[in-house]
Amino acid sequence: MKIACLAGDGIGPEIMAEARRVLDALALENVEIFEGDVGGTGYKKHGHPLPPETLEMCKAADAVLFGAVGDPDCDNLERHLRPEQAILGLRQALTLFANLRPATMFPGLEDMTALRPEVARTIDLLIVRELNGDVYFGEKAIRTLDDGRRQGFDLMSYAEDEVRRIAHVAFRAAQGRKKKLCSVDKANVLETSQLWRDVVIEVAAEYPDVALSHMYVDNAAMQLVRDPGQFDVVVTGNLFGDILSDQASMCVGSIGLLASASLGETQTEYGTKGLYEPIHGSAPDIAGQGKANPMAMILSLAMMLRHSFGLEGQAARIETAVSRTLADGIKGADLGGSASTVEVGDAVLARL
Amino acid sequence: MKIACLAGDGIGPEIMAEARRVLDALALENVEIFEGDVGGTGYKKHGHPLPPETLEMCKAADAVLFGAVGDPDCDNLERHLRPEQAILGLRQALTLFANLRPATMFPGLEDMTALRPEVARTIDLLIVRELNGDVYFGEKAIRTLDDGRRQGFDLMSYAEDEVRRIAHVAFRAAQGRKKKLCSVDKANVLETSQLWRDVVIEVAAEYPDVALSHMYVDNAAMQLVRDPGQFDVVVTGNLFGDILSDQASMCVGSIGLLASASLGETQTEYGTKGLYEPIHGSAPDIAGQGKANPMAMILSLAMMLRHSFGLEGQAARIETAVSRTLADGIKGADLGGSASTVEVGDAVLARL
Ligand SMILES: CC(C)[C@H](C(=O)O)[C@@H](O)C(=O)O
Ligand SMILES: CC(C)[C@H](C(=O)O)[C@@H](O)C(=O)O
Repeated sequence: MKIACLAGDGIGPEIMAEARRVLDALALENVEIFEGDVGGTGYKKHGHPLPPETLEMCKAADAVLFGAVGDPDCDNLERHLRPEQAILGLRQALTLFANLRPATMFPGLEDMTALRPEVARTIDLLIVRELNGDVYFGEKAIRTLDDGRRQGFDLMSYAEDEVRRIAHVAFRAAQGRKKKLCSVDKANVLETSQLWRDVVIEVAAEYPDVALSHMYVDNAAMQLVRDPGQFDVVVTGNLFGDILSDQASMCVGSIGLLASASLGETQTEYGTKGLYEPIHGSAPDIAGQGKANPMAMILSLAMMLRHSFGLEGQAARIETAVSRTLADGIKGADLGGSASTVEVGDAVLARL
Repeated sequence: MKIACLAGDGIGPEIMAEARRVLDALALENVEIFEGDVGGTGYKKHGHPLPPETLEMCKAADAVLFGAVGDPDCDNLERHLRPEQAILGLRQALTLFANLRPATMFPGLEDMTALRPEVARTIDLLIVRELNGDVYFGEKAIRTLDDGRRQGFDLMSYAEDEVRRIAHVAFRAAQGRKKKLCSVDKANVLETSQLWRDVVIEVAAEYPDVALSHMYVDNAAMQLVRDPGQFDVVVTGNLFGDILSDQASMCVGSIGLLASASLGETQTEYGTKGLYEPIHGSAPDIAGQGKANPMAMILSLAMMLRHSFGLEGQAARIETAVSRTLADGIKGADLGGSASTVEVGDAVLARL
């Protein structure tokens, strides 16, 4: 089981260290770890946020465990050299088109969110975000128009096969949950969304057991505050998924708790090849201070064991340990507590 | 003072009737009202959601009071005949590029939102949304690619002058408030956003008294839940503004409370020409039942008196009457109360 570990920038190395301790504690046989540089770290050491040796390592691996990228030192670099390009580049190079972002309320945290406890308690949703298309990867530039004005542009688009494959992922996920799927778009304004909606409806014919609904993204952002409990699985494009999944994370109490899986179609001998990362960023403001919450990273490890290695039992074991840690009141600064990164790691290890 | 009143579809006529009663009660001299059809109503009566006679009326008016458009009967029409095209068409034809969407907590409603009262109480923000550009008005179509696949596409773009004029509106608004401006973009991915950010920074040089910050849209969606009180004025593009302003409305308790102004550069003898509308839609599911909350419509009237007619005193009078109505516990179904549309109108009139 080849695992590429890319710690990245900011708090990346600290939280990755905790996830690695948890992985070690499972004492799985047959695990091979490879470490690579990415993001600002990749740029500083090798001149590129996604150095060729890191990319090759990820191609050869069965799964990628990814920390976080983002480094203020790199803010003024040309776009293709900025840290974020590492994650965008990996998603594209490995054709990781399906981003799974579960958001579930942890018992004991109802008091940590900005939502009322009775609203927060109902949250149990999965956002399925398309990750290889949309306005992220279309033609884009800042150009000078004939009249001398500068203009920035980005082409938003989806082709039917891109929508179809993510729709299948979402319908299958819904079949394994409460069989409710809400597709989010802006079909009253965008042709990209109109095609998205048309194709999702076509695919729905193959999943008669799943109840499909459609919602405009502005309404979805509102409903996620008003009544997040109404959602089971949400499927949406790359840009809307970026916004809504961050919003949903805060409804759960802290972005330091949310893990994600990015999957493609590659099957290894163990499961589906994928990349696993917390949905939070590199938090340069608290890097190196032992303040970061490693839980999202540890939960990303659990998702990796589940999806890429078929180790459901081990995944559940980690998730239970994290849940118990929270229920026991052990919280980092992001949750108003005082436990350090390592102390949270210790607590999870003790409950494994 | 020529006012074009476009009631539109669904609950539009009901809520417009209440705003008209409030306007009448002010007994302003020199008011001329014109009524026009728009949306599904426009299409059904004249074959177009924005009939030429309605557009001419709006061009000739000093201000437009707009109800709501949207009609399920029209869902399968071609895009250019759908009700939403009325509002998009008016924004474009009248060059209404600056959409002001204030969101403030009304005393007495802290218990109505999904947010904790102590969080909700801090909300006092103004979203300044660009309304004439972005992916809304770029080239767009569903086309068939050479290999036979269908593809939907929409071009996102901003030119520097489009960003500059909305930035000036936002900086000036911030000067009249707490002097804090947060510009929201996705500059780590979009070139449109990169230009947006560059130009906002250029304009900032003219407003040294305003503290400018930048936030990615995913983070902004999160922060609007976590700590909405941190925001004073938020400026953003058309698409992100659509999403964030709906989200903010729910933080305030009900979308039935939020008014908006859409302004351009046209000065009439009274003030700035503009269009005023609730940010909610036509709610076809409750149309004709007397359940709609007319407050957002009435507050839109107040914004019209302020911005287009320089009648700050009358505007404040209406706003105070609405506030008192809420503080007195008179609430429609959207706020868990039982007052009908007309009863809410009566209550506001009684407190004028
Ligand atoms: C870092 C950025 C490019 C990225 C995205 O927008 O996809 C991040 O926000 C995410 O959600 O993983
Ligand atoms: C009806 C729709 C086209 C419109 C928009 O997206 O601008 C609406 O959501 C709004 O916010 O005014």
